Amino acid sequence: MKLSILKNELNEAIQNVSKAISSRTTIPILTGIKMDVTYQGVTLTASDTDISIQCFIPVEDDRQTIVQVDKPGSVVLPAKFFVEIIKKLPSQDIEIEVQDHFQTFLRSGSTDIQMVGLDPEEYPVLPSIEENEIIRVNGDLLKTMIKQTVFAISTNETTPILTGVLWSLQEGNLKFVATDRHRLASRIADIQAEEEIHFNNVVISGKTLSELSKIIPDQNTIVDIVVADNQVLFKIERVLFYSRILDGTYPDTSKIIPQQYKTELVLDTKKLTDAIDRAYLLSREEKTNIVRLQTKEDGKIEISSSSSELGRVTEHLDVKEFNGEPLRIAFNSKYMLDVLKVVECEHIFIGFTGAMSPIIIKPTEKVNSLHLILPYRTTN
Amino acid sequence: MKLSILKNELNEAIQNVSKAISSRTTIPILTGIKMDVTYQGVTLTASDTDISIQCFIPVEDDRQTIVQVDKPGSVVLPAKFFVEIIKKLPSQDIEIEVQDHFQTFLRSGSTDIQMVGLDPEEYPVLPSIEENEIIRVNGDLLKTMIKQTVFAISTNETTPILTGVLWSLQEGNLKFVATDRHRLASRIADIQAEEEIHFNNVVISGKTLSELSKIIPDQNTIVDIVVADNQVLFKIERVLFYSRILDGTYPDTSKIIPQQYKTELVLDTKKLTDAIDRAYLLSREEKTNIVRLQTKEDGKIEISSSSSELGRVTEHLDVKEFNGEPLRIAFNSKYMLDVLKVVECEHIFIGFTGAMSPIIIKPTEKVNSLHLILPYRTTN
Repeated sequence: MKLSILKNELNEAIQNVSKAISSRTTIPILTGIKMDVTYQGVTLTASDTDISIQCFIPVEDDRQTIVQVDKPGSVVLPAKFFVEIIKKLPSQDIEIEVQDHFQTFLRSGSTDIQMVGLDPEEYPVLPSIEENEIIRVNGDLLKTMIKQTVFAISTNETTPILTGVLWSLQEGNLKFVATDRHRLASRIADIQAEEEIHFNNVVISGKTLSELSKIIPDQNTIVDIVVADNQVLFKIERVLFYSRILDGTYPDTSKIIPQQYKTELVLDTKKLTDAIDRAYLLSREEKTNIVRLQTKEDGKIEISSSSSELGRVTEHLDVKEFNGEPLRIAFNSKYMLDVLKVVECEHIFIGFTGAMSPIIIKPTEKVNSLHLILPYRTTN
Repeated sequence: MKLSILKNELNEAIQNVSKAISSRTTIPILTGIKMDVTYQGVTLTASDTDISIQCFIPVEDDRQTIVQVDKPGSVVLPAKFFVEIIKKLPSQDIEIEVQDHFQTFLRSGSTDIQMVGLDPEEYPVLPSIEENEIIRVNGDLLKTMIKQTVFAISTNETTPILTGVLWSLQEGNLKFVATDRHRLASRIADIQAEEEIHFNNVVISGKTLSELSKIIPDQNTIVDIVVADNQVLFKIERVLFYSRILDGTYPDTSKIIPQQYKTELVLDTKKLTDAIDRAYLLSREEKTNIVRLQTKEDGKIEISSSSSELGRVTEHLDVKEFNGEPLRIAFNSKYMLDVLKVVECEHIFIGFTGAMSPIIIKPTEKVNSLHLILPYRTTN
């Protein structure tokens, strides 16, 4: 294997695939990045078995020649060192040559690097996925849907299924659900997929989805998604991102969402966020995050928290709309802030079904998201 | 005590004094910030006994009224909560009132805060320092002198005196020295102090000097410094910064600095930094940070590091000047990078006195700094 390649293009591809490298892998070959060179271009692959990422660098694009291939071949290079050294090389041009025993020589400007390469035959083969049912999602929409749900996954490994986000597709409606049993986040979007494509109980690790988000560029990108039996493949420009589907059946959460409310509020999202953020400061010191909300006779609501050692915060908030019964409820302010940070709307609807029943938070604008948090049972 | 005060001014003063708050204090009153209100203004004080910081907010400045005092008084408020809540308050105007048992009420916009205050009589009195000998130093110069020396202090608490920076002043020359026994950093600057002012063996904690650096504004600021028996006072605009002087005698380091060299190099600082940075990547994986430098017959120098598991980095560097004997030496690349990051000069002089003797690094420009690192004894 022998080639020369442009530093920036190689670096960008390495940064993308390196998101699949785990520092805790027990399989030595997976501490490396596989490099396959053909006359068409260079393919980099990294994997931690849950996620595999592959990135292709063509020999040329519209603007320039990126790779000059003298001799095709493959090698596996030590990922951490490879990731760090490439971006620090002094010149745009990098020559790479593999010699006996996968010893790999890199030259850039006045820098010579020798890397201990590994045998590419030992590297696991990526799953082959039949691509007959592809759904296309706008990259920005996909990132928003992930952001609005992934924070609510469970971090408790004793129920692995809840560490994922549930995906389903019915009649062109893509739906994400996440819950840790104390709160729930869901988001639906119309993605205009063909009607015959549908799936259910596709659960993807929240950690994986966060990594996927980082790889999707900010500009208008289209992400092609292929759902197979136990894998999902995301195609983002030159990147293929494979994720394992979590084993098990996701619990049915539809029944815990109340259909009608005893008290309904519409509030200014920014003012509510700021008020709860101040109350959170004190509730955090008490380690409980408990904040109280109550409707007042003057039509305002009061939000408060207290700490016997430090003091008390009391906030008075105007209400845009108020229907139903007076209310007095306590909840985890961190959970509420997590929701308010991702809803992206000027006004927010909050529906209550009683002091011991779920609180529902929904944007008043068109976006089809729903967040639920369970209240705290408190004395007083 | 009762007053109203502008949020931004109060917040800035709190941020300054809060640098003296330690999360590990065992003295309950020192978890608070003391607030003293007179008709002249508000004084905030915080202390962890090693550092005490005081900041004065006048009732008005050139532009505006900052404080309106209804009733003078004092209180000690819980620091962490006070620091965080003030900057998040919704309105520029903050009303503060102390009632019975030091219960303190703050009001800003629609937010009401109640804080559990403590008795200001319990707060320790700051040392009184006679201000007959004041030296003035430009704030930027002081920050640079700290930056160029403080990284070389020892972090080992078994020799407390080496966790500080040694200050001395002779004939208007202010000198800083720091060493951890493996390396040494020194910097001298002419500060045009009066000749009769001189001191020696004033050792100030490196951690304290780093905090001091953060408080000195970036613009042209003058810092007035008063050195007393066991305290140093820094006056920076409205801030008084008191630091304890460390007990003990700083070791004499003058004898370990060689006066002549067997090999002298002048190198481009940026290129040397980049080359060592690349070699460092590999040496760090070996946990030794060992990098080798050797002069070559073609007049260049070679810098290299190696790891049996990962490979080898070899750098070839042009030399601007080269005098003396050929050389082969090994040193800690992290120590060298620490020096190269702070020297601030285009070319750098490195003097060697043999493979087992100190390496001296000096800027080729006018700045009077000197850095020393001990080489590694290696086989090969």
